[in-house]
Amino acid sequence: MPCRAPWVWAKVHFITRFIHRGMLCIVPMSLRSPVACHSLLDDLIAFHVVFGKTVPDVSLNAVANLGYAEAKWLLPVYPGDTLISRSTVIGLKQNSSGATGIVWVRTEGFNQSNLMVMSFVRWVMVRKNNIEVPAPQTVVPELRDVVPVAELVLPSNLNFGSYSTVLSGSPYRYSDYKIGEVIDHVDGVTVSESEHMMATRLWQNTAKVHFDATARPDGRRLIYGGHVISMARALSFNGLGNVQIMAAINAGVHANPCFAGDTIRAWSEVLDLAETATPTVGAIRLRLVATKGSGSDLWDCDGKYLPDVLLDMDYWAFIPR
Amino acid sequence: MPCRAPWVWAKVHFITRFIHRGMLCIVPMSLRSPVACHSLLDDLIAFHVVFGKTVPDVSLNAVANLGYAEAKWLLPVYPGDTLISRSTVIGLKQNSSGATGIVWVRTEGFNQSNLMVMSFVRWVMVRKNNIEVPAPQTVVPELRDVVPVAELVLPSNLNFGSYSTVLSGSPYRYSDYKIGEVIDHVDGVTVSESEHMMATRLWQNTAKVHFDATARPDGRRLIYGGHVISMARALSFNGLGNVQIMAAINAGVHANPCFAGDTIRAWSEVLDLAETATPTVGAIRLRLVATKGSGSDLWDCDGKYLPDVLLDMDYWAFIPR
Amino acid sequence: MPCRAPWVWAKVHFITRFIHRGMLCIVPMSLRSPVACHSLLDDLIAFHVVFGKTVPDVSLNAVANLGYAEAKWLLPVYPGDTLISRSTVIGLKQNSSGATGIVWVRTEGFNQSNLMVMSFVRWVMVRKNNIEVPAPQTVVPELRDVVPVAELVLPSNLNFGSYSTVLSGSPYRYSDYKIGEVIDHVDGVTVSESEHMMATRLWQNTAKVHFDATARPDGRRLIYGGHVISMARALSFNGLGNVQIMAAINAGVHANPCFAGDTIRAWSEVLDLAETATPTVGAIRLRLVATKGSGSDLWDCDGKYLPDVLLDMDYWAFIPR
Repeated sequence: MPCRAPWVWAKVHFITRFIHRGMLCIVPMSLRSPVACHSLLDDLIAFHVVFGKTVPDVSLNAVANLGYAEAKWLLPVYPGDTLISRSTVIGLKQNSSGATGIVWVRTEGFNQSNLMVMSFVRWVMVRKNNIEVPAPQTVVPELRDVVPVAELVLPSNLNFGSYSTVLSGSPYRYSDYKIGEVIDHVDGVTVSESEHMMATRLWQNTAKVHFDATARPDGRRLIYGGHVISMARALSFNGLGNVQIMAAINAGVHANPCFAGDTIRAWSEVLDLAETATPTVGAIRLRLVATKGSGSDLWDCDGKYLPDVLLDMDYWAFIPR
Repeated sequence: MPCRAPWVWAKVHFITRFIHRGMLCIVPMSLRSPVACHSLLDDLIAFHVVFGKTVPDVSLNAVANLGYAEAKWLLPVYPGDTLISRSTVIGLKQNSSGATGIVWVRTEGFNQSNLMVMSFVRWVMVRKNNIEVPAPQTVVPELRDVVPVAELVLPSNLNFGSYSTVLSGSPYRYSDYKIGEVIDHVDGVTVSESEHMMATRLWQNTAKVHFDATARPDGRRLIYGGHVISMARALSFNGLGNVQIMAAINAGVHANPCFAGDTIRAWSEVLDLAETATPTVGAIRLRLVATKGSGSDLWDCDGKYLPDVLLDMDYWAFIPR
Repeated sequence: MPCRAPWVWAKVHFITRFIHRGMLCIVPMSLRSPVACHSLLDDLIAFHVVFGKTVPDVSLNAVANLGYAEAKWLLPVYPGDTLISRSTVIGLKQNSSGATGIVWVRTEGFNQSNLMVMSFVRWVMVRKNNIEVPAPQTVVPELRDVVPVAELVLPSNLNFGSYSTVLSGSPYRYSDYKIGEVIDHVDGVTVSESEHMMATRLWQNTAKVHFDATARPDGRRLIYGGHVISMARALSFNGLGNVQIMAAINAGVHANPCFAGDTIRAWSEVLDLAETATPTVGAIRLRLVATKGSGSDLWDCDGKYLPDVLLDMDYWAFIPR
């Protein structure tokens, strides 16, 4: 009796014929739900849910989300799993203004069996509750620019040996990509208010700027940065159709805010390629850039992000060799 | 093997980390699905679905929804349950105009095992089909202002003994609330057309004013009143984070219409506190007010609701002692 | 233990109290999921998903979707089924311009057991990749105007013997309809951007005109034609409440584009009535017309569709006798 992939709204962004069908072919039992015969959720769903839980404690009133580092996916997540998040402040630095400061947090997500499914570091700028209080001792955590390949966690028994590029609809495997290669993902998706709010609620992200049009002086609701990540990742299947499993986010910056009505486009650059302990599985390091324009430039002459750049992300993923 | 809460879109409004996690800790088997290991649906989902079924027969062409009373939750509802509704006309009163009248209806919802899951009374103003016909005998049902505590139905074996306010994210229990206390729920949610229509369709509420922009002279679609109730209840978790299970709605009025673009805010007043037969479970009676403004006034000098008041509801809920 | 219908967002459009409740009464085991006790998905979900898979290969850049024929539902589809599609080009005809041509495709959808669940023919106008190349040999497939009743596939063991029109909420059975009868479905639904995009994504239809506001010169996103079909079919339950199972689409034309803000209305004409091999099951052939206006005219004096006509579809369905 074949395994059935459930209709999960939140997966639809990411499902391709391959994922639907492919799960049946390649995913070993270890990647299936131990309880029901479900295929695993898209990696970014785990990220969004673990992230969403941290919003009230970390970024509800943040002035800015400054970046991500050392994000690692450790275990697959299935429909029906129950996730909880735990965050630890690992860095503090008061800004010269004295009115704000930067807080570094390491967040870990656990499933109902208390197993860690993912962890990541992010840092945000927040206001100082009491400007009178002397600046805390500055602690800037040492963060790696790139998660070493040796630290990438392959889902146990993952084997792309019987992977079919016919079913996936994309012929390109590990060996078909070259370092430095840039891929334009062609398509665009125009973001809408309701669609975004329903996704962001699904992640239980309660930041008022996403839901309350009166929260910002300009009366516009901010699109959750993770929504832009998911849109860009979804668009990237057009050109990276076999880049199946995200393994790590090395770095990520939300360069500019995204609003309903913006049309998101994306392009990727191959930053690195590496073998893994499993001969059929390669690791590919990609820069994923989302823009609301059509250009492929990132910076102005001063090195500042151009106004139409939304996301600049660096991540590792697994791809069949 | 731990119980898994399924990804139910319709629950997402209401899920908090606590509900997700808490279900695992506190919900006894009697609160789990007898078939699959599901946590129960949000109480208002049961209300909306049972209500939705009555729309074609009761309020499809109603001039106004005037109020609710004696709503009681009797049994938990699970994802996958099949609900049907039965309504009985319990009151009739022709208006002085002779062109319209008020109809009181008691609605009962049953699950696939033919067990009553909830019941409520509501009254609507409808047009008289034939003005020539003499007025029917006036029958105004006797409705209690408040459902007596003794009539509140505790889910069988409900026990908050091991309830964790750490997991729930809110420290306030039964004994932390005082009668007369007013809580501003701070946050706001701006309502959007698609989001509302998808929710209201999920409840199978087919009233054309919610879906057909040409149904009203002003070309605006009316937001389903129950959507406002759910939004306000969701907002109220910020301050009432441990008010877990709705037990009864004593009274409810949709003071003004709500439209896409309105930003819903909410505040609550503690009306009463009562012990229940179960020592670990307290009952709290709350007034939940939803507004599309920022004020906390309800009435003008003539006792009419101010134009930015959307909902004025009085309900009982269970909270850990 | 009764069978439970799962909460499937995509079904909500179509669920009525009857379908929810009725499934419990009438659907024989053969119509239930062999794996879980699920009721089958709405027929159009199978169509949309099988169709969606063909978009990248067939109509992503089509100039126009010209029509459907010989669509047949062959097996029920359940929540959790995995569908894949296979299309075969069965016809080619270069237009006089020499710049475009018509391509006929027969698409077949299979479930995870490799059983064909449905098949249909559609034809689209596409640009010619290389105008220099001589026109291919013209092949126009012979397509029947109507699928013969004998070819309609009854779900195995389907039996409407215990069908309850009380539960369905509509009293009209096979014998209550007359050939030539026209039914106005009264209600209207105003289409919104997010709602449409979420549905169309659920079908994994990736045509950029549905998602990218910059894809068309007028900056408007096109509503997926199948969305209009589903809306019209949903509206038609008001008057055709017992027309339960779609069996075939004989013909279908998207007469004019649909955009967010349009209010869809529908009317049906009874084209034919036929008995089936099962005495309790009748077949009814219906013309389903969707408009964004209020008129019931189809053509202007030159036989061109009026601008407010969206859909003109001819289909077979099963109804209790």
